[in-house]
Amino acid sequence: MKAKVITIGDEILIGQIVDTNSAFISKELIDIGIEVSEILTIGDSKKNILNSLEKSQNNFDIVILTGGLGPTNDDITKEAFCDYFKDKLVLNKEVLKHIESLFKNFKDNPINDLNRAQAYLPSRAKLIPNNFGTAAGMMVKNLNTLYISLPGVPFEMKSMVSTYLIPEIKNKFECPVILNKTLLTYGLGESTIANKLKEFESSLPSNFKLAYLPNLGRVRLRLSAKGDDKKVLENTMDSLIDQLYIILDKIIIGFESSNPIEKEIGKKLIQFNHTVSTAESLTGGLISSRLTSIPGSSNYFKGSVVAYNTLVKKNVLKVNADLILKHSVVSVEVANEMALGAKKIFDTDYAIATTGNAGPSKGDSDQSVGKVFISISTPTDLKSFEFNFGKNREKNVYKTVNKALELFFSELLTRQ
Amino acid sequence: MKAKVITIGDEILIGQIVDTNSAFISKELIDIGIEVSEILTIGDSKKNILNSLEKSQNNFDIVILTGGLGPTNDDITKEAFCDYFKDKLVLNKEVLKHIESLFKNFKDNPINDLNRAQAYLPSRAKLIPNNFGTAAGMMVKNLNTLYISLPGVPFEMKSMVSTYLIPEIKNKFECPVILNKTLLTYGLGESTIANKLKEFESSLPSNFKLAYLPNLGRVRLRLSAKGDDKKVLENTMDSLIDQLYIILDKIIIGFESSNPIEKEIGKKLIQFNHTVSTAESLTGGLISSRLTSIPGSSNYFKGSVVAYNTLVKKNVLKVNADLILKHSVVSVEVANEMALGAKKIFDTDYAIATTGNAGPSKGDSDQSVGKVFISISTPTDLKSFEFNFGKNREKNVYKTVNKALELFFSELLTRQ
Repeated sequence: MKAKVITIGDEILIGQIVDTNSAFISKELIDIGIEVSEILTIGDSKKNILNSLEKSQNNFDIVILTGGLGPTNDDITKEAFCDYFKDKLVLNKEVLKHIESLFKNFKDNPINDLNRAQAYLPSRAKLIPNNFGTAAGMMVKNLNTLYISLPGVPFEMKSMVSTYLIPEIKNKFECPVILNKTLLTYGLGESTIANKLKEFESSLPSNFKLAYLPNLGRVRLRLSAKGDDKKVLENTMDSLIDQLYIILDKIIIGFESSNPIEKEIGKKLIQFNHTVSTAESLTGGLISSRLTSIPGSSNYFKGSVVAYNTLVKKNVLKVNADLILKHSVVSVEVANEMALGAKKIFDTDYAIATTGNAGPSKGDSDQSVGKVFISISTPTDLKSFEFNFGKNREKNVYKTVNKALELFFSELLTRQ
Repeated sequence: MKAKVITIGDEILIGQIVDTNSAFISKELIDIGIEVSEILTIGDSKKNILNSLEKSQNNFDIVILTGGLGPTNDDITKEAFCDYFKDKLVLNKEVLKHIESLFKNFKDNPINDLNRAQAYLPSRAKLIPNNFGTAAGMMVKNLNTLYISLPGVPFEMKSMVSTYLIPEIKNKFECPVILNKTLLTYGLGESTIANKLKEFESSLPSNFKLAYLPNLGRVRLRLSAKGDDKKVLENTMDSLIDQLYIILDKIIIGFESSNPIEKEIGKKLIQFNHTVSTAESLTGGLISSRLTSIPGSSNYFKGSVVAYNTLVKKNVLKVNADLILKHSVVSVEVANEMALGAKKIFDTDYAIATTGNAGPSKGDSDQSVGKVFISISTPTDLKSFEFNFGKNREKNVYKTVNKALELFFSELLTRQ
């Protein structure tokens, strides 16, 4: 089973937008045992599309295209399908009815012929309904390849993939089992870890693969496996993970969950019936926005003060002015007071505080660029951490946010 | 001049990470007149890399690969280069010296043979130095194609592209001029706009192209042009833009700047010597983090209260409890009070406030999911806006953030 994803759009090729569609589709397919072996991005031209269809024929079982289904002249996927499959467009009444019903809500945008033209599909194509937009999806089987065309608007595409496409593919194909587990490590570099794992790697079963994914001070180790028997794969995976734990000992933080860490944090807080707030300087509200990105977070997240300014630290968070004078705003003392201030203002069990110099210039403190302090106030304790994240502003902020969430999660893990 | 970007990594193919490298490279190349006509993502296997090198030969002037240059077994780009170009690895002393110097700072991670092996490059390859990491880049000219290999770590890759690669390519090639201008429109759908632009489109010069980019209620119109004479292209572009302004009249908001809107906002605030703060409910700190993502934002952004909780709205932002009882927390009245509260707490000229039901459930208010209120307190005025963004939580939050920043920017534009 080999799949290919083709995203169509000049806006991707000129770097105007980042293609996130292909990652979403790949992940959905992996979950049902189908590996994407190529992702290709091409421009909005019929020649490009025809060329990519031609090259995929019989080399892939499934080819999923996104984009080029809109109502305007630069949308040419359906035309290309007709050319390639020697087909013609015919009216699909179900789609027309759906498009007309969507337009009933738009007074300023009455339906026009371009919208109605979206109801025409190649005669051989099977419809993939788009509940949220006018661009219908379609599916054509040609020789040994199943071609699927979806709109490029992520929101519409995603819903069509989850609701219609994945069940359809599961029905049509016998898929193998694919397992992926990713371990998070902290403290050693990629090559040091690789040296420790030399023997482990060379004795891996042939259907298992180990990958090193270094990123911002952490190395993730991904073990992937492919086979027919889920039980057997899982058992082998478990014993390999055990070996990794023995070899790498203390540097393994845990599994990378398919849940983001903010979701895991939420689960713990709900379990303990505890609440959290934040006081953020250089992270500017990003910790708070990560925490609130989880549905139901209002049950445990109460609020945040973004104190980007020294006066705000004094006046709102009530950080002692003498402390600031003595230690500067970028100091462990100020981070601690910020955490305590937030805890008091929001009346929470936990509070997370950050202060630091994101750069490029030094701001209100003499501390060097990249110096960061994180404090976590717990129901019983106040813990503080110091880092030096280097000179890149964006990287500093993101490292601080990730670090703060990791430290907070570790703290929650110590309470059972 | 045709270029292709190839990103190597199983982690992209399984959807574990989104490939942002190719968008960055494409954008840098467009700026010097080189169009990327294909982006391809392949897995970490020598066969895949060889296959992609083979297919690119003579079909592209420039092929840029990222990834597969690390110290571990799954990094095989250099081996693939040697196989394909019938070359062998030789020690590059400059790179070895650099790698050794990087390791002097790491006490826990002493240099090992895997790191030293990174100093070996194909004999025909020209070095592209990597100041921030151990994975050197390289460049090989073969027949009519220039092959460039860069590490996959975005931070390292970006610096190498800007510092070494772009100047090198500008030197080596005579590049055409490429212009892109994107107009933001608001209020009409893609097909309605397309109908109005029928004549305009059909009379476009053959080296100009118009694209429609719909996204979350806005349609962006991108005009792109290619030619040899920059002056001539710019003049034609200007007159086409004038025509668009005449045809589309009121729905054009302005140009999409290559600057994010938060940067444009910052420029205006610095120009007026004004300050801003935020009071955020459903946006959870995202407006604040967008504003503080700009270096120097501490000059105009003072702080934010993330009031995710009704009690916080009352106790911290001092929203009148009766108002909440009467109108619910999701109401124009509460949004207004939140804005005034933030303005007072942070002592700023402007304050932006958001309140709404992001969903999936209704939270502390009876308002329907998707209902959002945004208030902007200005030095002279208090303006409020009501929206209904639908049922998707993530989309609601992002639409609210974008909308709030746009409304605030429009407000700043009215003050000259």
